[in-house]
Amino acid sequence: MKKPLILVSNDDGITSKGIRTLVMAMKKLGEVLVVAPDSPQSGMGHAITVGETLRLEENFIFDGVKAYECSGTPADCVKMARHYVLKGKAQPDVVVSGVNHGSNTSISVLYSGTMSAAIEGAIEGTPAIGFSLCDYSHDADFSHTEEPILRITEQVLKKGLPKGVALNVNFPPRRNENLKGIRICRQANAKWVEEFDERFDPNGRRYFWMAGNFVNFDKGEDNDEWAIANNYVSVVPCQFDLTAHSAIPLLNEDWDILR
Amino acid sequence: MKKPLILVSNDDGITSKGIRTLVMAMKKLGEVLVVAPDSPQSGMGHAITVGETLRLEENFIFDGVKAYECSGTPADCVKMARHYVLKGKAQPDVVVSGVNHGSNTSISVLYSGTMSAAIEGAIEGTPAIGFSLCDYSHDADFSHTEEPILRITEQVLKKGLPKGVALNVNFPPRRNENLKGIRICRQANAKWVEEFDERFDPNGRRYFWMAGNFVNFDKGEDNDEWAIANNYVSVVPCQFDLTAHSAIPLLNEDWDILR
Repeated sequence: MKKPLILVSNDDGITSKGIRTLVMAMKKLGEVLVVAPDSPQSGMGHAITVGETLRLEENFIFDGVKAYECSGTPADCVKMARHYVLKGKAQPDVVVSGVNHGSNTSISVLYSGTMSAAIEGAIEGTPAIGFSLCDYSHDADFSHTEEPILRITEQVLKKGLPKGVALNVNFPPRRNENLKGIRICRQANAKWVEEFDERFDPNGRRYFWMAGNFVNFDKGEDNDEWAIANNYVSVVPCQFDLTAHSAIPLLNEDWDILR
Repeated sequence: MKKPLILVSNDDGITSKGIRTLVMAMKKLGEVLVVAPDSPQSGMGHAITVGETLRLEENFIFDGVKAYECSGTPADCVKMARHYVLKGKAQPDVVVSGVNHGSNTSISVLYSGTMSAAIEGAIEGTPAIGFSLCDYSHDADFSHTEEPILRITEQVLKKGLPKGVALNVNFPPRRNENLKGIRICRQANAKWVEEFDERFDPNGRRYFWMAGNFVNFDKGEDNDEWAIANNYVSVVPCQFDLTAHSAIPLLNEDWDILR
């Protein structure tokens, strides 16, 4: 049987520890191609590079793996992989992104460059998964993520995913106790409350640092925040159809201006 | 009755023609506060500024309107408006974003800085609307957008919006015929197919321009692409819960690894 082609990207950049964890795991499952940002792209959401040029250079950081670093965003990387590196060739069987240094649960999925690479894969009709570790440190311990990454990716290669769906997978930080298992979840109802730390540069000009506190409003046990807090791996199926379908009949009924 | 407070942002930057159209219209409905990027931010998706500083300066471009230009993304602008400019004060009654120079129909909603400002408003629980004109030129004619902008915004101020929903409003380009009306729509099933134009800089180093062709797969008449093509204003209610809820029972049933 032909080995599956696995496209790997991320948002922390090609030199991060998290993408190395993912590349090493994927080598056990198939042929790996890496196209990842040449510098950190955290918080980029689903940004693409418009009106500016892009660079793409081969990178030899991973032994025996074809890899490219790109000056653009995670979404740019997936687009360049498909429409330039693999142009006219077999397309990936799965797109995987991460492992992100930091949580992408709940509302953070919107701001996540990691998930934008996965969603870009799903838009192209390829099964896609974003992996994130709920630990922000650069030297975070990723060792407990490999086994569930392999299980989830094998499952997706075997069974596919519903059309228009990418998976948002988050791992609890490494603890002494073992992971309790994998839970299919919904996105928790939570948000960031920002604070702006006002400072002055050496020229006396004002600038700000954005700092945020995460606030969880969700009391349910079927969401990703609950899963992580209870030492489960959370798996949220995500879609790129943003239509609030239930609001359509409400607006049609309620809006005078339509008549 | 107290005049409503209207927060205006955009992604083309504070000097664009489209935001001037929106500010002038909003002055007829209430008190206006502008916090908008100091430079174009198209294609920024829901990016936020992480690990870098932000600038915010007062700007006097709009007569009689308090305005600030921000070095960050559209989502940053809305966060700074709420949590810095309006900290401890009355919060906006509505967030409006645009008018964007270019279409944000269909899949483009994901890449849209215009809509990220609106969705950021919705996350904060404020009714929010993104407006876009399906005409990319810098000197595009926005004159036909003012009347529907006023009708839609008045309607939202009067009736609110369902929780967690922001509106994605697109206008056809100006034509001789009159607009046919306003349609509540779903996001069309379409995507961009990219091409990468490979060039070499004066130093002989390779670079790329991303160019895309929009491909519409959707044969329905209830989507935003159909509405625009048929000279209607399209209104898509958008949500920031990305959970593909229908996929949860499928995965729970189908995934061996959960047992």
